[in-house]
Amino acid sequence: MSGGDILASGISARERPLVEGLKRWVAIPSVSTDPERARDVEASAAFLRDYALGCGMSRAEIWPTAGHPAVFAERIEDPSLPTVLVYGHHDVQPVDPENEWEAAPFEPLERDGMLLGRGTADDKGHILMHMEAIRGILDTRGRLPINVKLIAEGEEEDGSEHFEELVRDHRQQLAADVAVISDTGMLAEDVPGLTVALRGLAYWEVRVETSSTDLHSGVYGGAVLNPIAVLSQLLAGLHDARGRVTVPGFYQGVRDLTSGERAELAQVPFDGGTFLASVGATADGEEGYSTMERRTIRPTLEICGIWGGYQGEGAKTVIPSRAGAKLSSRLVPDQEADQVTAAVGAHLRAAAPAGARVEFELIHDGRWVLTPSRHPAVDAAARVVSEVWQAPCVFIREGGSIPPVVTIADELGVPCVLFGVGLPDDRIHAPNERVVLHQLFKGMQVVGRLWDAYAKLGRQGLSEPLG
Amino acid sequence: MSGGDILASGISARERPLVEGLKRWVAIPSVSTDPERARDVEASAAFLRDYALGCGMSRAEIWPTAGHPAVFAERIEDPSLPTVLVYGHHDVQPVDPENEWEAAPFEPLERDGMLLGRGTADDKGHILMHMEAIRGILDTRGRLPINVKLIAEGEEEDGSEHFEELVRDHRQQLAADVAVISDTGMLAEDVPGLTVALRGLAYWEVRVETSSTDLHSGVYGGAVLNPIAVLSQLLAGLHDARGRVTVPGFYQGVRDLTSGERAELAQVPFDGGTFLASVGATADGEEGYSTMERRTIRPTLEICGIWGGYQGEGAKTVIPSRAGAKLSSRLVPDQEADQVTAAVGAHLRAAAPAGARVEFELIHDGRWVLTPSRHPAVDAAARVVSEVWQAPCVFIREGGSIPPVVTIADELGVPCVLFGVGLPDDRIHAPNERVVLHQLFKGMQVVGRLWDAYAKLGRQGLSEPLG
Repeated sequence: MSGGDILASGISARERPLVEGLKRWVAIPSVSTDPERARDVEASAAFLRDYALGCGMSRAEIWPTAGHPAVFAERIEDPSLPTVLVYGHHDVQPVDPENEWEAAPFEPLERDGMLLGRGTADDKGHILMHMEAIRGILDTRGRLPINVKLIAEGEEEDGSEHFEELVRDHRQQLAADVAVISDTGMLAEDVPGLTVALRGLAYWEVRVETSSTDLHSGVYGGAVLNPIAVLSQLLAGLHDARGRVTVPGFYQGVRDLTSGERAELAQVPFDGGTFLASVGATADGEEGYSTMERRTIRPTLEICGIWGGYQGEGAKTVIPSRAGAKLSSRLVPDQEADQVTAAVGAHLRAAAPAGARVEFELIHDGRWVLTPSRHPAVDAAARVVSEVWQAPCVFIREGGSIPPVVTIADELGVPCVLFGVGLPDDRIHAPNERVVLHQLFKGMQVVGRLWDAYAKLGRQGLSEPLG
Repeated sequence: MSGGDILASGISARERPLVEGLKRWVAIPSVSTDPERARDVEASAAFLRDYALGCGMSRAEIWPTAGHPAVFAERIEDPSLPTVLVYGHHDVQPVDPENEWEAAPFEPLERDGMLLGRGTADDKGHILMHMEAIRGILDTRGRLPINVKLIAEGEEEDGSEHFEELVRDHRQQLAADVAVISDTGMLAEDVPGLTVALRGLAYWEVRVETSSTDLHSGVYGGAVLNPIAVLSQLLAGLHDARGRVTVPGFYQGVRDLTSGERAELAQVPFDGGTFLASVGATADGEEGYSTMERRTIRPTLEICGIWGGYQGEGAKTVIPSRAGAKLSSRLVPDQEADQVTAAVGAHLRAAAPAGARVEFELIHDGRWVLTPSRHPAVDAAARVVSEVWQAPCVFIREGGSIPPVVTIADELGVPCVLFGVGLPDDRIHAPNERVVLHQLFKGMQVVGRLWDAYAKLGRQGLSEPLG
């Protein structure tokens, strides 16, 4: 056998241990949003700490936070080698509605090459994929070709509230040349992919007040500003007939994709019609862009909520004094959340009629993430993924945000490679979550080869700036 | 003394008894919206039944309904005389916030020529004004110049839910030549007035659905119809830049006022600026009409409520599947609620983009009421009011609706004269409700003279059609 075959074989030997380990871990209901499960999240952290040591990590510890604990583990072979930081999370989503599960969510069931249970795909399976791959490499070769660190968060499903503080407080211990984020997925089993971009977010609340008290619609109706009417006008005016955001300065800094990049995106097997039909939605958005482009590379301005006046059964003849809405923008490179916030706020205030008092407040924001496909860390990963899957690797741009990735990118200044083996049908966040085991097994092989590839690139080769 | 002076003196003698009777009645907390007060509403009805008999009504009885009971009383002098039906209500508003009352709401306090307490003005004081005036006439003359009937509802503050059924079931017993509704007010102590018009109402709910499930704003944002955006567009399009409703057919049947009628309305002492400033509101509405006209003689299309998506603290990155709003129109002569409902519904459906499913539902409607100032029943009342107040009587058009008035007008086919002595500062529906006693005393004198005037007009003279 060649060296590569020996490694592959050594890693394959860890497939059953991965499945058995995952069953034991999934049995710990580490639901971070449920205060009654706090002890389970602690137990989950302890499980992972011990598991990491069992897989050959030289050090593993629980890092407490003001919320749920994270787990840190590392194996430093030689400081001159590249260091890879692996990110995952050991907390899981709630299970409701529990009666829609085919099997108990925390009694994992292996069936048809899949493991069913809460956390199998999101994200415990991914973490053990990394741990068992390391064990396979060590069983075969006795050492790793790189240094590896693992940070497994315990609050990802609860907003990663303390993750930024945690990373800041441990910046030295988490220092690395590249981060591999394994909390994403692929488009299909036979379409291997890497995620290269996430959109950022700015989320606002706008409130309109037009009188100091609620008014009777009979006594005042027809003669006064109505705050819901004012708000409707403001919101209706945010887009033009071509679906473009009308706010002056909104598109400032937006980097247009090259024709090559658009072609790359167009190669992703994705049918917009099917995608929208599956949720009963109708296509809408900016003229001149595909559904895929609208949801990934273009900035948005969406209304996420609205309220005002009477919302109950029947009738209340009121003209309310106030109305409000939640707005959010998905941001793309190189938009700045502060600049967009200022632009939207100024536009809303200017567009409101005299007599309407407008308040505009930033609720939170987060930067976009971009690791271009030409970056050596991504390029190497893509080659390895293609080899293992024996199919071309596509580059996925996600429309959403993953806040801890922004934290890692910003606080540690490392390129982030988003490699996950989840599938669209894994039902993460829903009843009957499952993971396809051969996806995890292939993922272990990717890890084995990728560390070799990163060793070959060396610290210098990985250090190319993003941009 | 002249006959008129003798009558006035006899009625004046009932001033103190009115105040003392009102104190006892107000002490019964007949809050119709509070299920725990149901026995008090019953006690209030029994009090009024006994009080009416004490004032010389020849018959008085409690009429149960599926909700709270009403009280009926009558004194039939001679079937050939005109019959007046007096309407009032014996239930009262809730008292919250109770800590804002200067004195306990059900322990009436006489001070500075006013009586404070829940129900003093709305509407118990008005009912006793009628009862004690009758007692004064009978004490002086031994008989009434007309027949009188009283219907006092027990659910006016709770939506008059069973009043229509009650009137239908007792149509014969309630038959009259004219109805005098005493549940309204005047603009100021020195500006006597009669209400001659009430706007009607149509109240709707509109719901927009754009997908079969709530969507993640990162995954779908920018690429799908957003129901709040669609709803905002629909609502923003309901009025043009001149404040006119854009719905085709909306103004169908609207009777333009004659220049004489507009001049009559302009004579009402009313300062639109002060009126709006007192509630911190800003003037808005149809070009070419005054604030008074916009709120009384013009139809409206207002948004009374709106909802959709996330309304809580912080952020939820959702594109909801649905959004909705409550709309209402105040209707004026001769608009038809059915026709306006069809017009608004058709317009909203037509204006929605393909892919947005629009539901439009009528919640309830009620007709406008108009008793022109030239009608003999109003004309006579205006002359009497002017005499008693020694000032010209103004004709008030109210922007709101009083559903039982519509019921009486429609079911009994009688002209409705709206005579009430409330004042803008009476704080009905708010803490520290009060009635100005000399308003009630003058009101008693009006009643004394008005029955003479109606007797003089005779049944024939009162029967002029509305038009």
